[in-house]
Amino acid sequence: MDKKAAAGKNVFWEVLERKDVFTAEPRIKISVERLKLPDGRIVDDYYRIQLPESAVMVARNTGGKIVMSRQYLHGFGGVSVVLPAGRIEKGEEPLHTARRELLEETGYASEEWMPLGSMVPNVNYGCGRVYFFYAGNARRVAKPMSGDLEDMEIILMDEREIIQAIKTGRIASVGTITALSLAKIFREKSRC
Amino acid sequence: MDKKAAAGKNVFWEVLERKDVFTAEPRIKISVERLKLPDGRIVDDYYRIQLPESAVMVARNTGGKIVMSRQYLHGFGGVSVVLPAGRIEKGEEPLHTARRELLEETGYASEEWMPLGSMVPNVNYGCGRVYFFYAGNARRVAKPMSGDLEDMEIILMDEREIIQAIKTGRIASVGTITALSLAKIFREKSRC
Repeated sequence: MDKKAAAGKNVFWEVLERKDVFTAEPRIKISVERLKLPDGRIVDDYYRIQLPESAVMVARNTGGKIVMSRQYLHGFGGVSVVLPAGRIEKGEEPLHTARRELLEETGYASEEWMPLGSMVPNVNYGCGRVYFFYAGNARRVAKPMSGDLEDMEIILMDEREIIQAIKTGRIASVGTITALSLAKIFREKSRC
Repeated sequence: MDKKAAAGKNVFWEVLERKDVFTAEPRIKISVERLKLPDGRIVDDYYRIQLPESAVMVARNTGGKIVMSRQYLHGFGGVSVVLPAGRIEKGEEPLHTARRELLEETGYASEEWMPLGSMVPNVNYGCGRVYFFYAGNARRVAKPMSGDLEDMEIILMDEREIIQAIKTGRIASVGTITALSLAKIFREKSRC
């Protein structure tokens, strides 16, 4: 914990008022907050962006390869290699989303799931919390049928191939790189 | 490159129309696109979120420690350890932002900069491109004076401490973890 917080000094910003200024249900909500900082300063217009929460899955098959997909990503503006990921439906447990989306997008299933934590993509605006998961000994049990707009190709990559793809810019998603990094760090702890 | 793209099949989505539906200058712009997918399907309302671009810096000091800051992050909702980062001003070169913000936020400077690529935080919406940089042999040359709203504490961490902080949830920023991961991967290539 932060030293100052531990010393009893308040570090939190107080929300004096929050007003929704744009909504595109169920995807996007933008609010403006009026804030009071710990030193008493007032901030009149601090924007927050609410987006759907999502799950990103690092699924390792029985041969030690990671299940990924190669697809056109409109927000990226090109073809990139990404981990399977999906939107958490309202009220859905993130682990349930992870299992469901891994199966739908890739046809893979696993009985060895490990949560890798959750984070917001933008520490100021927020932009939709992302939950990261690792799935060990994943097996292909079905044909993929994601229903997503994207036309995707499932590919299997080992660690060396992933590092090469990152170095050459073929993996260009912060969610994918964060998830791979977390999986490596947490697996080294747990030997899962 | 994607096999299908290499085979001449178009994978790109065509933007038939784009309409701005919300603007909070100079920070946020939301547009809705009408798209035509390669298979001919029409998507009427694909949202895009434009946010300011930013730079995230992995600065390693002469003793091999990474320069980080511990601060309250309102979008995260608590105190977290993050890499120095800052907004790219209009027309500014990302590397210039990286040098400027590292100095302003932390008081450190470096003469050994290496770009680590750039990515969008959200492969659907976009949400502001992030440029990643590594700075070697960084030295403290000034007192930090960021002018940011956040009350931050500069801390130096070695790799073991960083991994421990990630495992215990004290580093909760996808930008920070992605930048650290990229720095490790690219430094192993270049021996910078």
